[in-house]
Amino acid sequence: MSAKAVPTMADIDQVFAGITRQEGVRYTALWLNEAGFRKAQATAQVDISAYLMFYTTDALSLRNNNCTAQEMRERQEKWISLYKDAGAPIESAYIVTAFGCNLQGEVPIADTVAAARHIIKLAREHEFPVPRIMLADTVGWADPEDVKRRVGAVRELAPDVSIGLHLHDTRGMGAANVYAALQMGVDMFDSSIAGLGGCPFAAHANVHGAGNVSTEDMAHMCHEMGIETGIDLDALLEAAQVAERVFDRPLAGKLMHAGRPNRHPVNNLVISTDAGAHRDST
Amino acid sequence: MSAKAVPTMADIDQVFAGITRQEGVRYTALWLNEAGFRKAQATAQVDISAYLMFYTTDALSLRNNNCTAQEMRERQEKWISLYKDAGAPIESAYIVTAFGCNLQGEVPIADTVAAARHIIKLAREHEFPVPRIMLADTVGWADPEDVKRRVGAVRELAPDVSIGLHLHDTRGMGAANVYAALQMGVDMFDSSIAGLGGCPFAAHANVHGAGNVSTEDMAHMCHEMGIETGIDLDALLEAAQVAERVFDRPLAGKLMHAGRPNRHPVNNLVISTDAGAHRDST
Repeated sequence: MSAKAVPTMADIDQVFAGITRQEGVRYTALWLNEAGFRKAQATAQVDISAYLMFYTTDALSLRNNNCTAQEMRERQEKWISLYKDAGAPIESAYIVTAFGCNLQGEVPIADTVAAARHIIKLAREHEFPVPRIMLADTVGWADPEDVKRRVGAVRELAPDVSIGLHLHDTRGMGAANVYAALQMGVDMFDSSIAGLGGCPFAAHANVHGAGNVSTEDMAHMCHEMGIETGIDLDALLEAAQVAERVFDRPLAGKLMHAGRPNRHPVNNLVISTDAGAHRDST
Repeated sequence: MSAKAVPTMADIDQVFAGITRQEGVRYTALWLNEAGFRKAQATAQVDISAYLMFYTTDALSLRNNNCTAQEMRERQEKWISLYKDAGAPIESAYIVTAFGCNLQGEVPIADTVAAARHIIKLAREHEFPVPRIMLADTVGWADPEDVKRRVGAVRELAPDVSIGLHLHDTRGMGAANVYAALQMGVDMFDSSIAGLGGCPFAAHANVHGAGNVSTEDMAHMCHEMGIETGIDLDALLEAAQVAERVFDRPLAGKLMHAGRPNRHPVNNLVISTDAGAHRDST
């Protein structure tokens, strides 16, 4: 998520003009500053999903926003009034590098909690409902126990506030982090089709931004554990395959390559042997 | 792990002749039948690590061994006496497809437990210590909750027996499964450098065997959570990089591409600003 990696908004008009809208789908956009929001707002067909952004470290905020974390906090007051003017309810508030920062190093849990406390304070001051607090593992430092600790600390601060996670699979712990979060009752995750984002095959050294956890792999994991998601997994896998064709390189999603487990295979070799009789013989 | 994918023992002599032995390292081999064991036994420098193999489904046993699961059980009595003759203690007993089988479908927990019960019975009858029971997710069906259920069921049967897991990352749940197992106190995992095994880049459709979980990613996850492994992670990452050079294709390991998180970066931008003063301002 270095500034260089963030796609520009330059062609947002063309992107949204090219979308054939489906009923029941929200077509949202991301922005990093007020100009970006105004651009999104001015673009036909964009469904505004308003959010706030807070940084735990100055180093990343300086790189991404050219201002300190504190200055970024102050800018959020402007964002709030823009959203108010636009009649857009603030749905979520991101805490960026909530688990650690490549530029500044370790992020104390107290700093993550302080950002959450600030979000709650802003909501009270500006009289809007406390939005979902999204803990973002921007650079892939989170481990499952740290997920539990930080989600737990924020929940202790605000038991009634919804907490979500924005996870990357930078160091192979994405699925474990989702599982840890599920155990904490987290039910909102940012993820991407086929684990898109970042390019592990182009530049092996100094990959600072890897893809998000794969939507279909995580939906599958939920389903296997009996957690309903309302997601049509076959359609999602089809989308992942479309993405792979479009990008024309192997994507990080696993299920899309392995296929769903076949619970009732047709070519059951047992039928043609007497082996079935032995199955429960111990 | 289809029979086709299992490497032959044909060149075991050359492989072991090419190894420069290091003190404190065991150089073991795998075999699928008695002939394979005899070959390993006859090969100079092989450190024999004796194990038994049990199948939960006839379908896979027929494909791998050309005999039913029950016949494979009977063959294990022969393996036991071979090991006894060789003076090789039986270190582990694998339960293959302990979580499900591509060919036969769902594997009831009762079948996994029955295999474990049979292992314990054999140990009693043949008077050897009950070996570590390895639950193998041969084809990548396991999910974290199923790991907990099956490990729990075997532990209930045999509270004092060590349980290990052989996990693949076929469907992107490898790390979550390791984490679930760690929560159950499992402390022995089969894994592979850089997640080797299987070839996700060669054949996307019908990939039946994907690589094991990556040794270095899982060691890193343990270290991050404060679990000591005794592993030199930097050396392990170097090994993964050697593997990638040898195989000359991007391997599945994540940490080897992302690098370890830098807890104390030198280029700390905060030094040159007054931003530090704001860090704890909420």
